[in-house]
Amino acid sequence: MSSFEEAETEETVTCLHLTFYHPGQEQRMMFRCLDFCRREQVRADDVAKFGRDSGVCRYSLADTRVSRVQFSLQFYRKLHTSEHGFEIKNLSKRTKLTVNQTELGYLNKVDLPWRSVIRFGDYQILAEVQEGEAMDYFETHLHLAEGPILQEKCLPSLQPENGIPVPENGISPSFFLSQGKSPTEMDENDL
Amino acid sequence: MSSFEEAETEETVTCLHLTFYHPGQEQRMMFRCLDFCRREQVRADDVAKFGRDSGVCRYSLADTRVSRVQFSLQFYRKLHTSEHGFEIKNLSKRTKLTVNQTELGYLNKVDLPWRSVIRFGDYQILAEVQEGEAMDYFETHLHLAEGPILQEKCLPSLQPENGIPVPENGISPSFFLSQGKSPTEMDENDL
Repeated sequence: MSSFEEAETEETVTCLHLTFYHPGQEQRMMFRCLDFCRREQVRADDVAKFGRDSGVCRYSLADTRVSRVQFSLQFYRKLHTSEHGFEIKNLSKRTKLTVNQTELGYLNKVDLPWRSVIRFGDYQILAEVQEGEAMDYFETHLHLAEGPILQEKCLPSLQPENGIPVPENGISPSFFLSQGKSPTEMDENDL
Repeated sequence: MSSFEEAETEETVTCLHLTFYHPGQEQRMMFRCLDFCRREQVRADDVAKFGRDSGVCRYSLADTRVSRVQFSLQFYRKLHTSEHGFEIKNLSKRTKLTVNQTELGYLNKVDLPWRSVIRFGDYQILAEVQEGEAMDYFETHLHLAEGPILQEKCLPSLQPENGIPVPENGISPSFFLSQGKSPTEMDENDL
């Protein structure tokens, strides 16, 4: 047998795809420290932090309106199952963070749905979890959105005709529409 | 008014009391890196790790049978309340960790009850949360148990006549007795 045939079956790896949008991103200043080219491995026992302080945050945003540490993501295994998941925690005292319809204050945390929109200030991040088997690490893959996520990316793909199932704790397109129409959200997100 | 009278009201601080027991602790070797004398402040956005690797773990156990990182504790604020809590996560691939009656495998996590016994290998740790208001940090206060926690410390104080209320997800003394009598637990914990 060749070494290829004898090699251990390769594990699939959980990958967290994060698509970033900011209305001022044409200048790309706030995203200049992020690597949009390659997947990055993160140890399962590490907590991935996002924020302005590059000494503390693995993913740093070069924007004075971003908190030193804005939020963190931890990888974990759900109790009594073999499923993995991510938990997001707001670490900013100044800024609320929303995950779909859930608003997180300072030190609040919540499970990240398999597909969700994270928002704080003018930032929108579409988070999509691609499940894998590996337990020792996960990967992150960062993308740059071409336009606002709530208007262009999220709404159409959540419609059933595109073949993407609506998650159990489903976000209906009408939710995003109603969010988009709310005056508060308009101000916050420049929609 | 004196400066004492004008000073801001001091905040109370959440304190996590951790009482350590190991059957070989008379030699105190495994606990030589822990500071039992003073309370320690931990930033609210930090994750407190316990394990053998002092480069990674704030609280290090000098014992080759302990994993590089054994478990972590994170401080958080419960959603829609002003209450704080701690979450414990098992970061050891080799060793199960139990929190009262809940067994955690690698990367499993669970809320730490206000009073609980954490066990892994021969270690027993009584964890008691003393609630406070401060949001930016919490304190840890480590103690050395005089004897096994399950036999001597936990059982009597959970009896109502001692004036300590039994928690909602109550641990009845019979639970600890039955655990103590189980052959598996006997082996694991040297009871």
